[in-house]
Amino acid sequence: MTITRRDLREDDVSIRIEFVGICHSDIHTARGDWGERAYPLVPGHEIVGIVEDVGADVTTHRPGDRVGVGCYVDSCGSCHPCSLGEISYCEEGATLTYGGVERRDASVTQGGYSQLIVVREDFVVRIPEGLDPAAAAPLLCAGITTYAPLRHWGAGPGRRVGVIGLGGLGHVGVRIAAAMGAEVTVLSHSDAKREDALRFGATRHVSTADGLPEDLHNHFDLLLNTVSVDLHTDALLQLLRLDGALVQLGLPPGALEVPVRSLTQRRRSVSGSLVGGIRETQEMLDFCAAHGVTAEIELIDAAALNEAYDRTINSDVRYRFVIDATTF
Amino acid sequence: MTITRRDLREDDVSIRIEFVGICHSDIHTARGDWGERAYPLVPGHEIVGIVEDVGADVTTHRPGDRVGVGCYVDSCGSCHPCSLGEISYCEEGATLTYGGVERRDASVTQGGYSQLIVVREDFVVRIPEGLDPAAAAPLLCAGITTYAPLRHWGAGPGRRVGVIGLGGLGHVGVRIAAAMGAEVTVLSHSDAKREDALRFGATRHVSTADGLPEDLHNHFDLLLNTVSVDLHTDALLQLLRLDGALVQLGLPPGALEVPVRSLTQRRRSVSGSLVGGIRETQEMLDFCAAHGVTAEIELIDAAALNEAYDRTINSDVRYRFVIDATTF
Repeated sequence: MTITRRDLREDDVSIRIEFVGICHSDIHTARGDWGERAYPLVPGHEIVGIVEDVGADVTTHRPGDRVGVGCYVDSCGSCHPCSLGEISYCEEGATLTYGGVERRDASVTQGGYSQLIVVREDFVVRIPEGLDPAAAAPLLCAGITTYAPLRHWGAGPGRRVGVIGLGGLGHVGVRIAAAMGAEVTVLSHSDAKREDALRFGATRHVSTADGLPEDLHNHFDLLLNTVSVDLHTDALLQLLRLDGALVQLGLPPGALEVPVRSLTQRRRSVSGSLVGGIRETQEMLDFCAAHGVTAEIELIDAAALNEAYDRTINSDVRYRFVIDATTF
Repeated sequence: MTITRRDLREDDVSIRIEFVGICHSDIHTARGDWGERAYPLVPGHEIVGIVEDVGADVTTHRPGDRVGVGCYVDSCGSCHPCSLGEISYCEEGATLTYGGVERRDASVTQGGYSQLIVVREDFVVRIPEGLDPAAAAPLLCAGITTYAPLRHWGAGPGRRVGVIGLGGLGHVGVRIAAAMGAEVTVLSHSDAKREDALRFGATRHVSTADGLPEDLHNHFDLLLNTVSVDLHTDALLQLLRLDGALVQLGLPPGALEVPVRSLTQRRRSVSGSLVGGIRETQEMLDFCAAHGVTAEIELIDAAALNEAYDRTINSDVRYRFVIDATTF
């Protein structure tokens, strides 16, 4: 199908897309799992490409630059979170890269499974030299979604981080946490990805099929839960030591059941995190370039999209599909 | 009844008790609400008195000093929390001031409804000059239990703190938070204590009987929940703005039900806090002396104890009973 991108405004950048990652949310949105949308809708919010043209007032990007676009293409700019650069928490709702409502012309936004995209300068980041552009695409969502909580909750030397689930988010999270100097443990429902977990930088892989090992009680400073099924929250809380935080990145269907004493006993907390701001996305990309962190990907043509969707849903991808956008 | 205190060890301090506060936990313990204990048991963990004698190795306290003892009289001293001075989170369990098991002689500890107590030097704090000793007694539990989370979650200028419940804990919490420079709102189930809330330093009192005001949505940085009944957790979460924390000090009977999206939307957290360390208790007392903060108390004789227990359970105390220990 053919979609039309808007004419360049003074603060717009048009980008010739090279690569776009396949995120679980693309599939949920395309298949209506999160409710009907205004179809036809073009998904894709892990976008890497080359600047083709810029509006009159654009100063940070020039034609020929390699840039990226993530989950959001605009926000109100003036609420409390926006004033702190935390645009994903915009109180008016940040504008989603696809399926959102464009703030100035009220059109429905269309994402990165496409040849070209037009985005406000402030929502475009620079892809540093040295990052493989295809493998960098998933950093725009999976990367920043794990980097932001790792930074916020202080992953680093002396800190013990657990990553629950080794999928698209989890595998990048392990690499970033290890690069930050934290001690990383992967908690996974099976042993299938043990070798990969260690290769990504984890010092330990635990298969939760056998229950949670006794020696991990009161162990972690931070548990990133990337899984979207209902887990036993209290069992996870018991793994946290003083001031430890269980942070939900996945969105399980049910509410969490949290016994108060499990919190008070060790001043533990349960929290959740969305994506990350644009400034922080740039910081994440620079960090990944400095530490050689990218996603592990399977590069596919557009024609393989439906098959890739099915395999993603079946967790049969190591670890992220990225589409070669020249094949659209 | 007569109880015997141990002979002074080299690191012990014996204290002639002047005042002891009545905490809800005294009543729950005495009445077996938290399970049977080794009765007879002497409650009391908000203790102020004068040092009578010290062991050979004691250096921080001298006979004649006015000192305090709070909820704990010992801890393992070597686990992760203890190494950070956070003895209330001791992984072996800190020794409760009453009803605990003394670590060296395995006797059951007896609390402060008494004329004399013997406590390890490291668990005795100094009551600063200028603090009324009777009104300072509740600071040893209610004071540090609110001060510790206010400090940990950063109450201060520009920060919006909500205190849920204006009882023994709540009223001290309001005074401390206001003294720290935070903007304080009291959320209470009725209007009965409105005047008091404002007098204690709150800028606003909200009666939750009418529901939660719309303008408090996305408002608070910190909500201290001092109430021990089941409240609607999600409704409270909606009051928090970006990075806001709901901190449980009370222990409601049921588990909290926490919708994940209510956390992720604003990176909110749910947590809980116990008491506070000894170093921090000293810091709290010095802070309270500098800012003229004490509890608002009714001073009673020992003979009025049962009546005071009933009135405390019925929330018919403004705001803490303190026993004149010379009447034991």
